[in-house]
Amino acid sequence: MNSFGTLFRITLWGESHGPQIGVTLDGVPAGLPLDIPDFEADLARRRSGAKGTTPRQENDLPQIVSGLYKGHTTGAPLTLVFENANTRSGDYDNLLTQPRPSHADRTAAVKFEGWNDPRGGGHFSGRLTLALVAAGVVAKKILGGATFSTRLTAVGGQTDPARFDDAIDDALRDEDSVGGIVECRVAGIPAGWGEPFFDSVESAAAHLLFAIPAIKGVEFGDGFAAAALRGSAHNDPIADADGRTATNHAGGIAGGITNGNELIVRAAVKPTASIAREQQTFDFAAGRVAPLRIRGRHDACIALRAAVVVEAAMAVALADFKLRDRCRRAAK
Amino acid sequence: MNSFGTLFRITLWGESHGPQIGVTLDGVPAGLPLDIPDFEADLARRRSGAKGTTPRQENDLPQIVSGLYKGHTTGAPLTLVFENANTRSGDYDNLLTQPRPSHADRTAAVKFEGWNDPRGGGHFSGRLTLALVAAGVVAKKILGGATFSTRLTAVGGQTDPARFDDAIDDALRDEDSVGGIVECRVAGIPAGWGEPFFDSVESAAAHLLFAIPAIKGVEFGDGFAAAALRGSAHNDPIADADGRTATNHAGGIAGGITNGNELIVRAAVKPTASIAREQQTFDFAAGRVAPLRIRGRHDACIALRAAVVVEAAMAVALADFKLRDRCRRAAK
Amino acid sequence: MNSFGTLFRITLWGESHGPQIGVTLDGVPAGLPLDIPDFEADLARRRSGAKGTTPRQENDLPQIVSGLYKGHTTGAPLTLVFENANTRSGDYDNLLTQPRPSHADRTAAVKFEGWNDPRGGGHFSGRLTLALVAAGVVAKKILGGATFSTRLTAVGGQTDPARFDDAIDDALRDEDSVGGIVECRVAGIPAGWGEPFFDSVESAAAHLLFAIPAIKGVEFGDGFAAAALRGSAHNDPIADADGRTATNHAGGIAGGITNGNELIVRAAVKPTASIAREQQTFDFAAGRVAPLRIRGRHDACIALRAAVVVEAAMAVALADFKLRDRCRRAAK
Amino acid sequence: MNSFGTLFRITLWGESHGPQIGVTLDGVPAGLPLDIPDFEADLARRRSGAKGTTPRQENDLPQIVSGLYKGHTTGAPLTLVFENANTRSGDYDNLLTQPRPSHADRTAAVKFEGWNDPRGGGHFSGRLTLALVAAGVVAKKILGGATFSTRLTAVGGQTDPARFDDAIDDALRDEDSVGGIVECRVAGIPAGWGEPFFDSVESAAAHLLFAIPAIKGVEFGDGFAAAALRGSAHNDPIADADGRTATNHAGGIAGGITNGNELIVRAAVKPTASIAREQQTFDFAAGRVAPLRIRGRHDACIALRAAVVVEAAMAVALADFKLRDRCRRAAK
Repeated sequence: MNSFGTLFRITLWGESHGPQIGVTLDGVPAGLPLDIPDFEADLARRRSGAKGTTPRQENDLPQIVSGLYKGHTTGAPLTLVFENANTRSGDYDNLLTQPRPSHADRTAAVKFEGWNDPRGGGHFSGRLTLALVAAGVVAKKILGGATFSTRLTAVGGQTDPARFDDAIDDALRDEDSVGGIVECRVAGIPAGWGEPFFDSVESAAAHLLFAIPAIKGVEFGDGFAAAALRGSAHNDPIADADGRTATNHAGGIAGGITNGNELIVRAAVKPTASIAREQQTFDFAAGRVAPLRIRGRHDACIALRAAVVVEAAMAVALADFKLRDRCRRAAK
Repeated sequence: MNSFGTLFRITLWGESHGPQIGVTLDGVPAGLPLDIPDFEADLARRRSGAKGTTPRQENDLPQIVSGLYKGHTTGAPLTLVFENANTRSGDYDNLLTQPRPSHADRTAAVKFEGWNDPRGGGHFSGRLTLALVAAGVVAKKILGGATFSTRLTAVGGQTDPARFDDAIDDALRDEDSVGGIVECRVAGIPAGWGEPFFDSVESAAAHLLFAIPAIKGVEFGDGFAAAALRGSAHNDPIADADGRTATNHAGGIAGGITNGNELIVRAAVKPTASIAREQQTFDFAAGRVAPLRIRGRHDACIALRAAVVVEAAMAVALADFKLRDRCRRAAK
Repeated sequence: MNSFGTLFRITLWGESHGPQIGVTLDGVPAGLPLDIPDFEADLARRRSGAKGTTPRQENDLPQIVSGLYKGHTTGAPLTLVFENANTRSGDYDNLLTQPRPSHADRTAAVKFEGWNDPRGGGHFSGRLTLALVAAGVVAKKILGGATFSTRLTAVGGQTDPARFDDAIDDALRDEDSVGGIVECRVAGIPAGWGEPFFDSVESAAAHLLFAIPAIKGVEFGDGFAAAALRGSAHNDPIADADGRTATNHAGGIAGGITNGNELIVRAAVKPTASIAREQQTFDFAAGRVAPLRIRGRHDACIALRAAVVVEAAMAVALADFKLRDRCRRAAK
Repeated sequence: MNSFGTLFRITLWGESHGPQIGVTLDGVPAGLPLDIPDFEADLARRRSGAKGTTPRQENDLPQIVSGLYKGHTTGAPLTLVFENANTRSGDYDNLLTQPRPSHADRTAAVKFEGWNDPRGGGHFSGRLTLALVAAGVVAKKILGGATFSTRLTAVGGQTDPARFDDAIDDALRDEDSVGGIVECRVAGIPAGWGEPFFDSVESAAAHLLFAIPAIKGVEFGDGFAAAALRGSAHNDPIADADGRTATNHAGGIAGGITNGNELIVRAAVKPTASIAREQQTFDFAAGRVAPLRIRGRHDACIALRAAVVVEAAMAVALADFKLRDRCRRAAK
């Protein structure tokens, strides 16, 4: 289903070329000040405009259509809506006959037996992450003191930030795309958030992160590198009475529960599936493999814009844990 | 909470040294033949006994205490119980004063304000994966035709299986442990399973996988390697009218939905946190860092036993999707 | 939370005097034809206009802002939105100092610590049932062959329909209101829907029915009258091989599961809490009981308009069970 | 599914004649003292032994098999198990060919396509309420100061308690059964518990109450009687600054949220479906209506034993709301 969360639950809807996309946030504590400008900074990070991102103008700001009164949240469901202006629908029927490789065109058509809205990827479009970023803004307000720092640690295989632009330039020149790795660090999360087993912090965060289109890998702390380490090198000895650890290979989570150290998560973003250069893929009308050229404006490196989406997903997951933690503590 | 799933929902409980651990499976279709020997093969894989695994004898088989009648599932909740025999409780109070590095000892105590059962890790023990493996056996019955093949692709940084033993031997000699990477492939899953966004196949699978103690990374298809690829290299062109793709960089999932190709998932297993060699970590009674030696029997490479747990988690996630998919198709 | 359902899940939001109210329907099967006129008949029944209903004009029709493409549902979340036009907000601050008796004014203020939107009852307004009725229209499409017949069986204590008007006239004359009882019968539901215990048909239906403002009692079949009967008089003997029962005291549900006979549910609707005549209630500003006159347009008998809301709630609950049932049967 | 609750979630399993029945309670706050004798009083109330109840001996006490350590809850899932001793399974195949009127025999067989455990009603047996009563004991501990008073207000149509025995005697003499009405009042619940719309207090409580076998009606406050009242007679004016109301027609709930007054709920219990006297019902083997005599030990008035079950269901629903309320308040 298109909902996620236990006490702070978000419900997402919309299509790339439908009238609007939106998100309903349930469980928002009453009395949080909220206004449209609060959304600007994070939405601008998603919008980008840098080299390697689509030149399409998206100056979106949400409308708040429920849950707000006199500039504060009311405790009732908060709904944020974005109009889809200036969509170029044109003719998308070719996506039904020759689905784009590594897109949802084909799987959506199989799942929904051809009834899916194919325009711009429909409900599977990356445009829906706009609503997720907006939800993240509210989640950060719930979190209060937490500090997020999010950056790309790799682009197209380059790990030196000075070379990121080159990797993108090369891909653009070749009408191609590149992937990247987003790292998000969250400071200020106290120990004790999360639940054993199925609602571990890693479980809930990964659940949300893998909902973001193009993400194919998630790791916490040392992640995959931990598999190559010895226990003596990977273990994080506790260093003081506050539970601070001398190292942080675990990325701030032990037994699925936060340990009071900085949270560290990385997400692997695959290269944009939409590339301008010609591809060979099956044409269901013709009954054979045929060349495909994808028209339109594309991101050469969607990872650039995914960074704030990863951050928003982390904020949403953590806000739910914060509310659940407060509950447990208060219940004494 | 300790439940997971929408139509096929599992609820897990128990502690390492409590009377028993168990799992209730709700939504099991009626009429599946089920008997104790069905569990033997997978439980034996978890039990191991190979070098690098704990020498403790766990000849566990479950009791089926509800949901079975005349050798078939009834459609009512199916409950599987494992007795905890021969536990060596002894004195665990030292875990409260000097929590083991990278264990849940400290986070559990913070979360539950000192009321958690510390014996053998209590509810956070890897022993609870016994119940998950048993749930996986039932899930595989629900899945019918799906075929699982699961193996280690790395141990202690070695990727050549011929060197796995060496890595473990070296760790054992040093009273240390090593991590590993588990790869699970599932054939026979049709296209169309999974839901857009929050219930993508990757989201649900990762949610369950990160519930397994020691797992710190999850990736599908090329995963983190995809971040270094170009779109032209990573895209999987469709090769025939059945949707088979010429390559499978996506690991059988596009837009969060299965595409009919083999599912490929990898999980990074950290080195066992319990090592015999001395560690320096905070002693809360003494108020300073002090040496710690962890007594008892430990796995030098828990990844060996985690393989079947990863497979079980995948089976549980997929069984839920199968039931949901059938529902959608039948609803026409 | 403001969501309900397992496979067919509705999420409701909005306030009486906010910009709009809406509902998102998740799990709608793809390919159902849907158009605005489909909503007219049921929305007209809720709108009423008969004596005893508010003279306010609500010519609302929904906008479909997601989940529809070329006149058919897509399988993605379907969102229906109603604009709140011509609201008379005025000054509602008096509701904070002197909450209306038997309204949510006081409880909402306590729960949300004064941050709730008080205008017209805010999120607690009966206006939100507009969205529930719209959801019911979609639910009936999912149900296909089911036939609903819903009527009032009592108004202000009168059980003879010929006297309903008199009861309302008398109340209007006295600036007062009256309650009523709604009976909803559903034919065409096959045997086998519902789940044992917590998801019995009665449980899910009552959950939704008690979400409707003003409903204070729910009964199935003979309901409270059954408590006065003997087993020999109440039991429904099976009459034929199709499971038809000679009588239907159970209202079509045995063991929480439909038995193939007509479903019968009744809901008690309390008299409208907003009455024009003067009431004595506590004034928190004055610190003492004081007279209160509620201004505005009110329904003398909200039960008249609640009938279609009850029907919609039943349709929503049953649509979820239909999807779940199909799943179970298909899973063989 | 067989789970209920958001933060305090119970999962129920078992069959009347299976090895055991049990309940897992998730979200129990850590540190509550708990011991077997705590369960005795409520289980004794369910056991009864009074005239009109089955003479079968059920001296059940639960085993606590998880979630308890050193006499206190640990915060991990708490599992309570009851062994099914001395069951008389005998031959239940006749229930498949001639299902008992108004039992789940037929609907369960349709739903589960003949795979259900028919012995003693299997999973649909009233015996499962044993686990619900045990869950209620823990819920009451979570609730702390709340006081429950529960009684029968009617038996077999008699509302004078002095005549209850006569009604039961008459039914016993006629090999018949009688229904009854249970009223549960809860004092000490503060204002502000519950959520608008789908998680109103009435919704959640009714959901659980209708899960109890034999309950066919639920009402709060004046309930169905409210439908016959005028607003001026039914409204509860607030009487003081604490929100106490001069009357309590609403049963302590306004807008789905507690208002600080006593909660009042009534549940209609149908007459026991199992009666000793001969009934005429369809015999699927013979293909015609035929006489049926139900052997075994039955309750002439199951309402006597249902009282504590109703109380337990209310306690479970309220405990979940308490945890959720604490969370919201603490989140400021």
